[in-house]
Amino acid sequence: MVMMEKREMNIWVVLLSVLFVLVEGVVSKKGGGGGGVNIWPMPVSVSYGHQSVFMSKDFKLKTEGSNYKDASCILKDGFSRFLDVVSLAHVIEGDFSKFNASTILQGLNVVISSQDDELQYGVDESYKLLIPSPQNPALAHLEAKTVYGALHGLQTFSQLCQFNFSSRVIEVSKTPWTITDQPRFSFRGLLIDTSRHYQPLPTLKKVIDSMAYAKLNVFHWHIVDTQSFPLEVPSYPKLWDGAYSIQERYTVADAAEIRRGINVLAELDVPGHALSWGRGYPSLWPSKDCQQPLDVSNEFSFKVIDGILSDFSKIFKFKFVHLGGDEVDTSCWTLTPRVSKWLEKHGMNETQAYEYFVLRAQKIALSHGYEIVNWEETFNNFGDKLNPKTVVHNWLGGGVAQKVVAAGLRCIVSNQDKWYLDHLDALWPDFYMNEPLTNITDPKQQKLVIGGEVCMWGEKVDTSDIEQTIWPRAAAAAERLWTPYDNLAKDPVKVIGRLTNFRCLLNRRGVAAAPLIGLGRSAPVEPGSCYAQ
Amino acid sequence: MVMMEKREMNIWVVLLSVLFVLVEGVVSKKGGGGGGVNIWPMPVSVSYGHQSVFMSKDFKLKTEGSNYKDASCILKDGFSRFLDVVSLAHVIEGDFSKFNASTILQGLNVVISSQDDELQYGVDESYKLLIPSPQNPALAHLEAKTVYGALHGLQTFSQLCQFNFSSRVIEVSKTPWTITDQPRFSFRGLLIDTSRHYQPLPTLKKVIDSMAYAKLNVFHWHIVDTQSFPLEVPSYPKLWDGAYSIQERYTVADAAEIRRGINVLAELDVPGHALSWGRGYPSLWPSKDCQQPLDVSNEFSFKVIDGILSDFSKIFKFKFVHLGGDEVDTSCWTLTPRVSKWLEKHGMNETQAYEYFVLRAQKIALSHGYEIVNWEETFNNFGDKLNPKTVVHNWLGGGVAQKVVAAGLRCIVSNQDKWYLDHLDALWPDFYMNEPLTNITDPKQQKLVIGGEVCMWGEKVDTSDIEQTIWPRAAAAAERLWTPYDNLAKDPVKVIGRLTNFRCLLNRRGVAAAPLIGLGRSAPVEPGSCYAQ
Repeated sequence: MVMMEKREMNIWVVLLSVLFVLVEGVVSKKGGGGGGVNIWPMPVSVSYGHQSVFMSKDFKLKTEGSNYKDASCILKDGFSRFLDVVSLAHVIEGDFSKFNASTILQGLNVVISSQDDELQYGVDESYKLLIPSPQNPALAHLEAKTVYGALHGLQTFSQLCQFNFSSRVIEVSKTPWTITDQPRFSFRGLLIDTSRHYQPLPTLKKVIDSMAYAKLNVFHWHIVDTQSFPLEVPSYPKLWDGAYSIQERYTVADAAEIRRGINVLAELDVPGHALSWGRGYPSLWPSKDCQQPLDVSNEFSFKVIDGILSDFSKIFKFKFVHLGGDEVDTSCWTLTPRVSKWLEKHGMNETQAYEYFVLRAQKIALSHGYEIVNWEETFNNFGDKLNPKTVVHNWLGGGVAQKVVAAGLRCIVSNQDKWYLDHLDALWPDFYMNEPLTNITDPKQQKLVIGGEVCMWGEKVDTSDIEQTIWPRAAAAAERLWTPYDNLAKDPVKVIGRLTNFRCLLNRRGVAAAPLIGLGRSAPVEPGSCYAQ
Repeated sequence: MVMMEKREMNIWVVLLSVLFVLVEGVVSKKGGGGGGVNIWPMPVSVSYGHQSVFMSKDFKLKTEGSNYKDASCILKDGFSRFLDVVSLAHVIEGDFSKFNASTILQGLNVVISSQDDELQYGVDESYKLLIPSPQNPALAHLEAKTVYGALHGLQTFSQLCQFNFSSRVIEVSKTPWTITDQPRFSFRGLLIDTSRHYQPLPTLKKVIDSMAYAKLNVFHWHIVDTQSFPLEVPSYPKLWDGAYSIQERYTVADAAEIRRGINVLAELDVPGHALSWGRGYPSLWPSKDCQQPLDVSNEFSFKVIDGILSDFSKIFKFKFVHLGGDEVDTSCWTLTPRVSKWLEKHGMNETQAYEYFVLRAQKIALSHGYEIVNWEETFNNFGDKLNPKTVVHNWLGGGVAQKVVAAGLRCIVSNQDKWYLDHLDALWPDFYMNEPLTNITDPKQQKLVIGGEVCMWGEKVDTSDIEQTIWPRAAAAAERLWTPYDNLAKDPVKVIGRLTNFRCLLNRRGVAAAPLIGLGRSAPVEPGSCYAQ
């Protein structure tokens, strides 16, 4: 998972530095007020006019005509975050008595048709946003099937708001806006690895909030790995003895309340990438000297997996659990006499034992009501044996999705050369142009590609550098995953202005998104406006 | 201000990598629970015991016996931030009914003797903290002369709190604590440059909050410079035409409410470093082709300075204003015929004109009630002419403070080789060991060194990388400036464990402090615990 591809300096590094000078027109130095539509990711359909409205100081949430009761305050909390981000910490000191009353927007009416607010894969995420409402111009109007569609609508709305330095209030220019929108793919993920480096809760929560800005909807939590086991597992309370330190841990209660409107895909990467499990339970190791993969010959290995997945099922309500299955080096099995005898007795070579382990873990996950995601090596080695409820997670390179869907399985695309955020030489145009449906033309097969994910592996990422390694590159992929194919730019140069605007917006919201120029997470090379870097 | 010193690879880069392996004992891998006192910066006097108390879920602020009325909610807001940072976003789910009642801390009683809460240079910052209170063990006890001393006490208290993963509540171990404390220097600054890169308000506010964690007390705001002029100046409303973009600006109201309990030293760097002023008022330039320094021959230059300082005096209430005066290249004066004729007429060479400009700006500042800070070139060129109310701000190198105080002027130390944060090869041991009173032995002269400042110049720093460029190196300087000389470590190796603990604490609070290993703001080089990097 961590092979850094050594390749020649990405041509984009050079091109982009030049482009910012040459194509100055595409970058709105006026700070987002320039021509065109500055929404990221680009919606399905947008129309706008030439007027402006201004948000009143006590801008209100209304829900007239809505079926949704909001018992868990999902909408209310989302609206409160919306109010926070649109002010951008500026002092709103405008004198509203001086405004033409017809230009004041008193609030937003949100009409949600479904009462159900279970957050789940495939939930309807569509919305329609009208600013102002044709029926009642004192309000904006947002309608959605579900509260999750409404949350996306709030994100879009927030991007249309701008602090006006003359009038000292929040302005929505280019009204009237009519926006209809829905995602192209249902699975739009970001992986965070909390094993190589522990990420404190405020960091995770901030990343999750920023995911929502880009309409990403799956937080793939690569919780544990070889290096550390930070999560509490009540069934096996010594597992988090494998944490780096007593402070670098998450309680079940912490994990349960982390999602903030985003799906959580929890990962248990077995049988490789699990050395840290044995710090609390050494019998999970083939031997003290050969500690990985988990001991295939020991029933306890499967009992522990069962216990963990049972505990997972109480807090991670997403339809899928990720069972890993990548990079399994079986030499500890063949080198440990006890294990190799077991293999012999059961008539398995190590490849068969790997398959046996993965399929048995799959059955355990299914028994807890999960469908399964596995890394692509499982498919590459024994694809025909995988449970039909498996989603194959591509990472090694391009062209895999094509084979997976041809075999009738579902696929998530994360080819490392384009969508691994730890590959600092994969630049935002690479992220933007990586098409999950490459060479997949049959509509039935296309539907099997449920989406994609950008991966923030944690070897060289801790709290000090995680945000700028993720942003703005993750945003480039987010548009690929959200926006209808026909609306996507065929040439990434076309979106420099809009993506720059989004990165500056992230900065204004306090998110440490890096400049577009340079390798991933590069510092700015010289003084300059955010809009020119 | 931006000369990067090219020198050989700092020996500390190598040494530190080794030290973390060798001196494992000094680093508490247990996450701050290890031996010794994990407070940063180290207080004047600390004693502790072997017991523990636990903060009740509704931990309360009490002010019994206090004279302070807190009309502006300074204490209340500080207490609310205290509660936020001690929970570190963990879910507090402990069952208090199972605790021995005598171990529960119900709240903190804060006794402040002064009713005055004017934030100013030299305000009493001392405090005394007792946990628990000997008089009433159900409470902690904090006493201070001023509310600002009490805020420091809250910061110290917050560092003693730790989420206990067994009991799921906030624990203060090693009670009873008795801490008395006060700063060594009254001026403990951090410079932020918002001209080379605009820093959005949430970024500035987060940096200011994190300054308080390290007990830094002066935010030196290098607001404007050659590249951009982001601040609104009501007297001359076209000045912020020199901003990078319409969004990259601060209103007066924004600037006024930024301080959050920290002094703001506003800087107007004249006559050099002021090119951006002329975007709105081109007559401030010697000519269109030669735009800097400000035109010494034009009365308008001084009128504008007067207008700006008049506006400053309404929002920046600190005793000092910074007038810059560094790196003045006078060639535009001699090369512009109109200006050179004026020089001739007034019988000045360019050095005299530089002196004339600085001294006249000083008089304007004095007329608005300010004392003045100037960069050291003013002292180096015409030190005997500077107003006695001048504080000389050292930056070029070591040994300057000695000369300044010998001349009877006050001094702030910021020698770039040790205390410039943009010098990525100045490592935390350099920051820690830089002694402001080097070679100053006369107690009267020592008092003239009012403190020091670490400088975060903005050429290569925007929102994406500012936090990890500041921290943890600024913290190393903060201890030098706070802690009594005799309590400071003579060898920085001695503080690795405690500083590592502080950097991990910053991380847990969501501050992107970089690893201690490596150059400034380096990414972690490999997987590992925060406590080992």
